This record gives sequence, structure tokens and C-alpha cells, in this order.
Amino acid sequence: MSTTNQEFLSDFATMSGFGATAGGGVDRQAGTTADHATRRWFGEWLAQHGFAEKVDAAGNQFGTLDVVPGAPYVLLGSHLDSQPLAGRYDGAYGVLAGAHAAARVATEAAAGGLDPVYNIAVVNWFNEEGSRFTPSMMGSSVFTGKLALEQALATADPAGTTVAEALAAGDRSTGAGAPVLADVARYAEIHIEQGKNLEETGTQVGIVDRTWAASKYRVTVDGAQSHTGSTRMEDRRDALYGAALVIAAARDLAAEFAPGQLHTSVSEMYVLPNSPVTIARQAVMNLDLRSPDEEVLARAMDLLDKRIADAEALSRTDISLVQTHRWGLVSYQPAGVALGTASAEQLGFSHAEIMTVAGHDSTNMKDVVPTVMLFVPSVDGISHNEAEFTRDDDAVRGVDLLTEVTRRLVRGELAAD
Amino acid sequence: MSTTNQEFLSDFATMSGFGATAGGGVDRQAGTTADHATRRWFGEWLAQHGFAEKVDAAGNQFGTLDVVPGAPYVLLGSHLDSQPLAGRYDGAYGVLAGAHAAARVATEAAAGGLDPVYNIAVVNWFNEEGSRFTPSMMGSSVFTGKLALEQALATADPAGTTVAEALAAGDRSTGAGAPVLADVARYAEIHIEQGKNLEETGTQVGIVDRTWAASKYRVTVDGAQSHTGSTRMEDRRDALYGAALVIAAARDLAAEFAPGQLHTSVSEMYVLPNSPVTIARQAVMNLDLRSPDEEVLARAMDLLDKRIADAEALSRTDISLVQTHRWGLVSYQPAGVALGTASAEQLGFSHAEIMTVAGHDSTNMKDVVPTVMLFVPSVDGISHNEAEFTRDDDAVRGVDLLTEVTRRLVRGELAAD
Repeated sequence: MSTTNQEFLSDFATMSGFGATAGGGVDRQAGTTADHATRRWFGEWLAQHGFAEKVDAAGNQFGTLDVVPGAPYVLLGSHLDSQPLAGRYDGAYGVLAGAHAAARVATEAAAGGLDPVYNIAVVNWFNEEGSRFTPSMMGSSVFTGKLALEQALATADPAGTTVAEALAAGDRSTGAGAPVLADVARYAEIHIEQGKNLEETGTQVGIVDRTWAASKYRVTVDGAQSHTGSTRMEDRRDALYGAALVIAAARDLAAEFAPGQLHTSVSEMYVLPNSPVTIARQAVMNLDLRSPDEEVLARAMDLLDKRIADAEALSRTDISLVQTHRWGLVSYQPAGVALGTASAEQLGFSHAEIMTVAGHDSTNMKDVVPTVMLFVPSVDGISHNEAEFTRDDDAVRGVDLLTEVTRRLVRGELAAD
Repeated sequence: MSTTNQEFLSDFATMSGFGATAGGGVDRQAGTTADHATRRWFGEWLAQHGFAEKVDAAGNQFGTLDVVPGAPYVLLGSHLDSQPLAGRYDGAYGVLAGAHAAARVATEAAAGGLDPVYNIAVVNWFNEEGSRFTPSMMGSSVFTGKLALEQALATADPAGTTVAEALAAGDRSTGAGAPVLADVARYAEIHIEQGKNLEETGTQVGIVDRTWAASKYRVTVDGAQSHTGSTRMEDRRDALYGAALVIAAARDLAAEFAPGQLHTSVSEMYVLPNSPVTIARQAVMNLDLRSPDEEVLARAMDLLDKRIADAEALSRTDISLVQTHRWGLVSYQPAGVALGTASAEQLGFSHAEIMTVAGHDSTNMKDVVPTVMLFVPSVDGISHNEAEFTRDDDAVRGVDLLTEVTRRLVRGELAAD
């Protein structure tokens, strides 16, 4: 069943009602009631549009359309889960765009207007955000063999609920027959940019060619509990003060490089005992360094070690860093970039090659299957915020672009590199 | 029933088993199972030693000994609740010392060896620590009319449990007939110093003459959620970074004054949304300034305002301070200090007048009734830590001193100023 751009916008508005927040965004962390409600609606949408719905053991929700019996799939998708108090577009836009593109191309194939060599499927990857269950990109990590299914299912949120329990609380656990990696020939994903490069340059669509390099850490600051009032300043071993020095040092690090060369952040922190009259004995936090330049990242990592040592000395605490993620300046397949570019050219959309700072499910998929990653503009680059916004004309332009990309992929245009 | 110092130490060891931690301390926050178990044991101890146990609506647990029918009480006490992973002495030492001193003096009175004009009572004030339920000194604040009973009972912990619910979970809710403020003629409390002035000067006991001045705040840092990776550094409004700047500024403030003139701390923090890939929109924390000099405190408060403005500008956040507590350099009654000093002289204990940095239940009581506050040494000044320690000979010396103070108070020696 083909769809119109008006239908896409109408579906998007309906979908954005699940987990809607007063501030105009959505709040549907993975496996919550709001996420399950969105998944249910999407499952019904798939059925209404002729897809077969199949959910795998990691909670990835697929819709398949078989146009070439027995052939592998061109898989399109992204994720429907969100950060807390997040925007409507991040992930959800890409899933719905993928579903509409799949429906359109399958209709053309059925009508004989294509010469398809692959089947078509759409996926809603489980827990891309990682805010409730760490790590992020969980569903696509299991699918691509980077994370053991058992480990994913056993992951607990801060309240102690596991992924397995959170998934069981939903009603899409259809289980059998879902696609596995070997069934997938090509992958394509579209996402809002979450930055403002396209907007600033007046470019309509972006073809993602590389991912920023990143080094992520878990930082533990160990001090000693004591009374906030009576302990002399020079006797204190204040873990929260040590943590504050690390946060400030990470920020200062970014200022030592040219603008846009290093992004640093600390965003999550746990303090013990977190009492108003007891100096903290421990603070645990994340710390991320990201750069579009491998050398900058390496220098930043060296500098960080020095700054950590300074913070330790000043706060009389012990600070340990454990690297939790490290990836280099990874390229998307040039053939995929070329196919995305050719598609934009054909449709007359202004386009540019662009790097992604954020990780996406395509970050996993591109490592194992030829992948095309597309961006549409984000107003003011705002993301992970209820004010996240992409204009309707940009949104439907993206659906058209993804449809053309899918058309070409289904025809077998993209050679594996 | 009189008691010996050996019995005191034996009782103290038994009591320290409730909520005992692997690290040699105790963890019995107000109204927890461990606190209730300690209260039950103390209630049984009171009964075994001839006290009548009475608990008031705020959870304050009294034991009364009537030796002068109808007369008001000399009240002795402190608190049995603790910080998380705390030491065995803070509060608990004072309650048990008060109970033993009361038993000893009542026995002397019954034997005709005193000429008592008051009755004697001991109290375990509910929730002095304030780590689970804010504010601290809750029970004595209600007792002295500084906090409404209804407000105290409705106070919820971070999990949503109220004081009323936490109290109802225990079995000491005897209710009727507990002493009220009008029944109390004098108050005395003994506590570990939680500092190392007595230890450093080799002084056996301290007579508390003043409280450090303090100004306490709730600090709210408001930023904006955004993606930790893709948001440009110059566009960020990172609430956790703003908070880190405030924590560092508070620490730097202390370094601008001579050692011991200003103590500053931040020890409790809540971050929203506290996600690994979303810049914090809000951080809420406490911030305390304390000084033995009112002018220093006033200058520190002015400087803090300037530093907050700097932190706001640098982090592009909005930072608001709400003062939650403010007290001046409050004196204990000189007549009480004189009585404590005379008692130490009589027993041949080396002694000194000393200020308290920490608040105590006596901080409340001294405002409404003639009060004597005593200190014994803390090894290395360590407190709010499992390693908190006071030597046995110091502990029993304190019981002896409190007994002599009680003897004098019961005789009516201390005139109200």
C-alpha cells in the first residue's frame, strides 16, 4: 500500500501523541509504558499496510514485505524509544520514514515498476537511547553480534528492572521468524541532523560519510565521608569536589582546541551518600570526548590524564577512569555515500556530505552490511530536548530521498565494497 | 537503678550492633528498620532500669524517672539515628550517657543523697541527622515549637515515604503522656566533638559556649537539555557544568580566609535527566557556609553571590540560591557553661570552652530552656564515617561529667539567666 506525504505527516502527528509531554516533546524510554504504546501503534500500522510484524528476542520490531520470494532484505529503520523529556523526531522520524519508504517501494515493485532483487523490511531497534538501560544502541548491537543477547536481557535499570522484564511487560513479543543478520543485504537509515550544519549552509539533505571519533569513560572519584561542618578544610577528601574539578577540566579541554574540534561532556552522576551534612565518599560519572580528528582526540586523551592527576591532588581523592567505548573516525561505505548523493541529485535536492557526531543504529549496521545514512536539517540543531524540531517540508523531503535510496537498493544498485 | 562505667561500655557495645556495618560503623537513618530496632532495644533498657517510656507524636522517645512528684524535668539526651555508613558515637553516645547519668542521679536522689527539686528524664530525639528526611534536628525542632508537627510528619524521603509512615512502621508509638516543652526545666547533652581541638590540646572535656554561625542554601542550576555529542560547545547550557563551577567556587571561597575561619561544602546533588547522552537541564544541590566569625561569614556570603554570577555567565545557566538556614554566632547560656566548668573542676578533668561547628539538638533546646552542652574528644576528628572513634576512657569520663552536671541541675543549682 503506497502512501502520500500528507499521510506521513498525519501518521507522524499521531505517533507523537504516545508519551507526549506538556512541553511538546515525548518521553518514552525503552520498555516503558509509553514505549510499549508506541510499539503497539506501530505494529498495527505495519499490519494495516501489508507488512508482516516480527519481533526478535532483543525486542527489535520488524515489518517485512516480501516482493522477491526467498531474497534477503533491504532493511530501513531507526528507533522509537526516546530520552527523558525528549523531542519527537530523534529516531521516531527515521522509523516512520523507513516504513513509508518501504511501503512505497514495495507497491512499485508489486506493480512491476521496478526490477527488485531484494525484499524490503523496516525495523524499530530496541533501546537506541540507552538512558534507561546502558549501553545505548542495544538492539542493533545484539543484532550485529556486538553484544550478547543474554547480557542485553539481563541489563537492569536504576530501579532494578531488567530488559527481559521490561520487554515482557509489552505485547509485541511475537518472537519466531524475525530477520537475523544473515537475512539483511543492505541497510538505510534517515535521522535528523541534531546539529546545525545543514541549516546554516542552507542544505536540504545530508549524506553521512563519517562518524566522529570518540572515547568514553566511566569516572569514579573516591574520597572519604566526614562531617560537612566540623571537618577542617585541609582534612577533607571530598569526592564531589573532585568530581567538580573533573567536570570543569573536561570543559576546559574543549577550549584548548579550535571550535568544533573537540566536544566534551559529563552528564550523568551518582553521589554517595548524597546527604546534606556528610561529605561525599564517592562520585561516579560518565565523561565523553569526541572529535572529527583522530589526532585531536589522542591529544585530548593525554591531556585528560594530566588534568585528572591535578584534580586528584587538589581534592585529595583517588580518581579512576575506565574506558567504556572507543571508536575511531569510522567511514560509511563510499559506495553508499555515492548512492545517497546520486539519489539527492536525481530529486534535485541540495546536498552535502556530513559527519555524524552522535552514534546511530547505522553505526552498528555499517560495520556488517552496506549502509546508507541520511540526514535532514534540525532547527537550531536542538536535540534531546522537547523543543527539537524539523520542518514538515524537510521531513517529507527526507522521506522522498529515503524512498529513492530504497528504490535503488532494492534494484541491487549498490555493490558491496 | 544505678550503673557502672563497665555497664555503660557493655550497653554501648550492644547498642552498636543495631544497624552495624561491615566497616565497624552503623547505618540507621531515621525511621528505618535499623533505627526501629535500636529504639526497641532502648525502650527495653529504659523499662529494665525503672524509667517510664513515653513517645510523642514526633517520634521523640522519652524515659522519665519521677523523684519529685509533679516537678518539671531535667532532660538529658541526644539522638540514636545516624547518617548512612556512619560512626557508632554520633548521637548514640549522648543518649546512652544521658540514660546512665539519669539512672545514677535518680538512684542517689531515691537514697536521700541529694536534695532534688526536679524530676529526671532522658530523650532520644527523632531524626537529628536529616539525611533521609530533611530538615535535620526534626524531633527537637517540633518539641521546641520551631517546626509544625504536621509539616514534620508529612515530610517525605526520596522514595516518597513520609515521616508519619516511617514512624508507624516501628513499635514504640506509645503516644500519650510524653513530656512537652512546658514540663522541661533544664536540658543537658553530651556529644563527641567531631573535630580535633580537644585531642590536639590534650584536653579531656569541652564545655560548649557557642555555635559557629552558618548560612545554608539550596542551589538550583537551570540549563537546557541537548545532545552531549552533537551540540556545539558554545551552544551548551549545561546545568552540571554550572553546578561544578559552583562547587569549585565554594571550595575556593574557604581558601580566601585564614585556616579555620570559613568551612564550605556541597554534599548533596540531584541531576536531571541524569542520562549518559543528554546534557543536564537541571542540577539541584545544597551549599553550606559556616564560620566562627560573623564578619567572615557576611563577607563570604557577598563573595559567593559574585562567584555565582561568574558561574552563570561561564556556563550560560541560571543559578538561584534559596537560603534554607541562617543562624548567627549563638551563645549557650553562660550560667550553663559555668556549671559545666565547675563540674569538670570538681572531677579533676582538664577542660576548655569550645565552639561547636555542627548543629545539635541542644542548638534548639538552648533557645528555650537553660542548657549545658558537653564534648568528649573524637580521635582525628573523624565523624560521619564508619571510622569515627572515641576512646573508652574518654567516653566514661564524659558519662561521669554528665552525671555531675545532672546532679547539680537536679539540685536546682543553675539559675535561669
